[in-house]
Amino acid sequence: MSLTALTSNDARLIEQGYPDTDSRAFRRCLGQYPTGVAVITARHNGKLLGMAVNSFAAVSLDPPLVLWSIRRESARAADFCEAEHLAVNVLSANQVQVSQWFGSAHPDRFQMAAWEPDAHGAPLLDGAIAHLECRRHAVLDGGDHFILLMRVERHASYQGEPLLFAQGQYAVTQSHPYVLASREATATAPASDVAVVPLLRLLSIANQRMSAQFQQHREALGLNTSSTRVLNKLGVGACSVEELERLTYLGHEAVEDTLADLQAHSYIAKDAAGRFELTRSGRDTNAAIAARSAAFAAGKLQGLSESDVAAAKRVLLALQDR
Amino acid sequence: MSLTALTSNDARLIEQGYPDTDSRAFRRCLGQYPTGVAVITARHNGKLLGMAVNSFAAVSLDPPLVLWSIRRESARAADFCEAEHLAVNVLSANQVQVSQWFGSAHPDRFQMAAWEPDAHGAPLLDGAIAHLECRRHAVLDGGDHFILLMRVERHASYQGEPLLFAQGQYAVTQSHPYVLASREATATAPASDVAVVPLLRLLSIANQRMSAQFQQHREALGLNTSSTRVLNKLGVGACSVEELERLTYLGHEAVEDTLADLQAHSYIAKDAAGRFELTRSGRDTNAAIAARSAAFAAGKLQGLSESDVAAAKRVLLALQDR
Repeated sequence: MSLTALTSNDARLIEQGYPDTDSRAFRRCLGQYPTGVAVITARHNGKLLGMAVNSFAAVSLDPPLVLWSIRRESARAADFCEAEHLAVNVLSANQVQVSQWFGSAHPDRFQMAAWEPDAHGAPLLDGAIAHLECRRHAVLDGGDHFILLMRVERHASYQGEPLLFAQGQYAVTQSHPYVLASREATATAPASDVAVVPLLRLLSIANQRMSAQFQQHREALGLNTSSTRVLNKLGVGACSVEELERLTYLGHEAVEDTLADLQAHSYIAKDAAGRFELTRSGRDTNAAIAARSAAFAAGKLQGLSESDVAAAKRVLLALQDR
Repeated sequence: MSLTALTSNDARLIEQGYPDTDSRAFRRCLGQYPTGVAVITARHNGKLLGMAVNSFAAVSLDPPLVLWSIRRESARAADFCEAEHLAVNVLSANQVQVSQWFGSAHPDRFQMAAWEPDAHGAPLLDGAIAHLECRRHAVLDGGDHFILLMRVERHASYQGEPLLFAQGQYAVTQSHPYVLASREATATAPASDVAVVPLLRLLSIANQRMSAQFQQHREALGLNTSSTRVLNKLGVGACSVEELERLTYLGHEAVEDTLADLQAHSYIAKDAAGRFELTRSGRDTNAAIAARSAAFAAGKLQGLSESDVAAAKRVLLALQDR
């Protein structure tokens, strides 16, 4: 056992507890494990089924098995459990909207999303980075969920980056910074002084470092990424839960949890129309974030010439449009 | 059904097949779904157990259940399945080494990693972003794997970013670019012209766009991120599989698959000591990547003044060290 363990973990603790006494805190903790987003589809009794989940997991290669879970209480649980053929669509980073349509059981989701049926009529969504065409293998008892074990009969992979769901919000992947750093050291990059590849690496490393550091300022105000993002949106005007979900790229549960948390701190309140708006204290908090980010900015850029910073912005803006 | 589906998917197809006839291709397809990395630990019969997995999934809130899978043929399967108490450690972005130690069953892994025992002796790893203390609930049949369903008795979350495993390689999360773009539009950012927060957003958006575009150049050469990375490392000198795994931040299976693929293309060969080295054709391919990246660079930076680009690099380099 290490001697350094206790102190280092304690300093970073967000929350701890017992799932039997606080299932919301438990759900937040489960959200620490990042996942992709898969839309499970089927055609059953002539009806199209589709649901965005992040409980997908690979299980076995031989036989080829995968699994996912659905709430017993879900109105669609019986249909999904009875469907003999199902498809898994692994969503790409471009498919946040698709994830939201299938997360909320939007009535027009099969009109809005482009798809084609597989051999058994299960919708294969256009733009996904993988399709798995499956046959039901077993339905297992998973507490308040059913675990659907499915046998994969056919698979296809497509170019694209995966969509991520991590710590309650949609995200995308980027190369691990250590890879970038080590590629820097041993690069086969061209010798040209204006090569964009080294510039890209610089971008990525600087970006990582700054984001991680600013995170500490949020935490010093008792905020996290989710609450900062919700406060930011409410700073523009009152929003409903659905609007916040769409605007913040947070998951439904993360929005609800964050709103409950911000209400408990009296940062927000419901207006007459039932939408959420900032209180005086919420506006003050937004101002405090802005002040911190200004101070953070000034500190980071200290010693750099204004003309260099302006030039850097010109370069970054130009790269955005190319 | 959409009319646009077929063509758009076809253009992006990487590979398709039947898991029963090619389980390696199936495994690569499963790798399209991104996951976190969890180290499952236990103390059983006085012996410490630890294994890095990416098959972890949340299942149920009430009762609180999670699951993961272990190969039936694993030497440690019996111990893990018999252990009554187990812990899940969700790794942070800083724990690639920990993931590698526990992925390879490194003999000194419990000496090298810092940890403390939970109430039942299961190691809780220092630096993880979540700890779940669990009791075995059920061991289910999962084909060539056992599915371990575990009841969570206690949980804790810690500050930090998650480690990702996506498309065969270690990665980290970043905010979804649409979020960044919409924050740009409605920002509560300070008015100061040199604020680093807007600069950060510019960084992140430019970085995203350039990475995605350069990906297309790799693909035009029949390469992907993994093969480019392995060729890059071998350009520095011959490596063993283990060295490549450590140096490239690719997973063990991705390294093996990539090596098999590069050998099939005659880009690499084994040297007298059994390590892999570039062939003439492999060196030519590395040179072609370098030439493409130089051309890409020149194209992207065209029209920007050399002094602006140099200034941008000064700013990014300075930000890296702050």
